[in-house]
Amino acid sequence: MLHASARALYYLGALGSCAAIAVCTLYVTKSTAQSAKESEAGSNASPIYGVTIPPGYRDWKVIAVDHLVTDKVDQLRAQLGNEIAIKAFKEGTVPFPDGTIIAALHWTRVPSEDNNKVLAGAFPGAKSFVIGSPVNVQFMVKDSKKYAATGGWGFADFKNGKPGDKALHEACFPCHEPAKAHDFVFAHYAPTP
Amino acid sequence: MLHASARALYYLGALGSCAAIAVCTLYVTKSTAQSAKESEAGSNASPIYGVTIPPGYRDWKVIAVDHLVTDKVDQLRAQLGNEIAIKAFKEGTVPFPDGTIIAALHWTRVPSEDNNKVLAGAFPGAKSFVIGSPVNVQFMVKDSKKYAATGGWGFADFKNGKPGDKALHEACFPCHEPAKAHDFVFAHYAPTP
Repeated sequence: MLHASARALYYLGALGSCAAIAVCTLYVTKSTAQSAKESEAGSNASPIYGVTIPPGYRDWKVIAVDHLVTDKVDQLRAQLGNEIAIKAFKEGTVPFPDGTIIAALHWTRVPSEDNNKVLAGAFPGAKSFVIGSPVNVQFMVKDSKKYAATGGWGFADFKNGKPGDKALHEACFPCHEPAKAHDFVFAHYAPTP
Repeated sequence: MLHASARALYYLGALGSCAAIAVCTLYVTKSTAQSAKESEAGSNASPIYGVTIPPGYRDWKVIAVDHLVTDKVDQLRAQLGNEIAIKAFKEGTVPFPDGTIIAALHWTRVPSEDNNKVLAGAFPGAKSFVIGSPVNVQFMVKDSKKYAATGGWGFADFKNGKPGDKALHEACFPCHEPAKAHDFVFAHYAPTP
């Protein structure tokens, strides 16, 4: 069952960027053990696209950061990219090449009382907002053949390491369609200060 | 001359994190050519601390992101770390080891009309804010001997690749002192969603 609030969060999440990882082709030969593994992997893969969490994504390089606020959520967000993604962003390559993976990390945005105390002396009324807790992480994985029906992108949305359901993932591509001119990617590479 | 607005921006910037890079010891022997180079390097180093911009910092890993708003500024910010910094953050090592460098990247925060159009259908009133333009970048460099007088940290603040003046940099350490319990570092490592 898809709760309205979950769907809402998902759509909102999709704005940052929403994606899928090519399913690892770990299983070369067929065996009972491997079937068990496939089943296990399946439960950790996104519906429709079969995307799993790419190891080490937290250490990927920064594409950009953003802030999303609605009547239900208030989030600080970061989009990170694997090496193929970062190279494409830096060079302005569109469409993104196969192998591109974009990760969108979402956290709650909360006031920092510690920071505000420091600010208060010199800057009365200044407000610092920092990361509260993790919300979800999303991935876009480019495979122009495998995901030809969805602009060449596979999508995935994970919360506490578990993928959302099928209905949630059916919303990914329609939400990204307005960004077609940028190969369905909302994020733009942040300039270097 | 230090304008009040510049000082204000600086103090605010310091909250994200403010720091300095050990001056590269490029000049082994003395010569006229090298003296010229020293002079050139000097103009690109922060006053007091002699910190220059570390190559490749834009590609460093993410410590955290935050949002700062006052009556004068509205910024999205990211703190990135070199390998020594990231290892220390992940392991909770305090004080941070010598060689740690923390970079604080600051950008203006602006509404994304493109994103808001996409949101409007499903989420009337939802607001997406993205990076506008670069503001400044700051560095904290740990060298417990060289910077013993300032908690072991050297500081630097750059705008358009040029360091701020001496008065600006005199404010770095006093601003960071309230974070003494976390080795004068405001940023905390963002949890992995």
